[in-house]
Amino acid sequence: MSKSSREPNVIYVGRKPPMDYVLGIITSFTGSNANQVTLKARGQAINTAVDAAEIARNRFLKDVSVHKITIGTEEMPPREGEGRARNISTIEITLKRT
Amino acid sequence: MSKSSREPNVIYVGRKPPMDYVLGIITSFTGSNANQVTLKARGQAINTAVDAAEIARNRFLKDVSVHKITIGTEEMPPREGEGRARNISTIEITLKRT
Repeated sequence: MSKSSREPNVIYVGRKPPMDYVLGIITSFTGSNANQVTLKARGQAINTAVDAAEIARNRFLKDVSVHKITIGTEEMPPREGEGRARNISTIEITLKRT
Repeated sequence: MSKSSREPNVIYVGRKPPMDYVLGIITSFTGSNANQVTLKARGQAINTAVDAAEIARNRFLKDVSVHKITIGTEEMPPREGEGRARNISTIEITLKRT
């Protein structure tokens, strides 16, 4: 996952509540008139990303559907005091206007 | 999500550690010689399902890849003392032998 936040129409999902990201999705689709928006998340935030995608398309953006979902694994540097790198799961959910 | 646990090659992911489900995936692919296995999870277990799928295919089953991922929403009965039904996100990850 790129650390750049300049990638257009990509929303990095973290520890905020799902509705924060729903707002971001709506803003991307309506404000900048994007045709598709990708949510990227890893670890525990995967659940939040799925929630945000589902809330956005079921409740707010009826003309948007899930275009593509991919999962992957990223290697993270070891935590302090631990010797080994950790693997963490990632997800990318692309929503597209139909 | 069906409540039947008799559906062949479907693994319901819950609150156990990911490795428990990885073992289930391996058993399905090798023991019953299945061609594909579907993981189903909801809520917080979505993260565990992605972890299990990733660990299984990266570490143990090199000839297995992600065939399909779908997300959805399920209505759950309200918690005790709450009046409203809750919506919960779901995921289905199908792994297939390549």
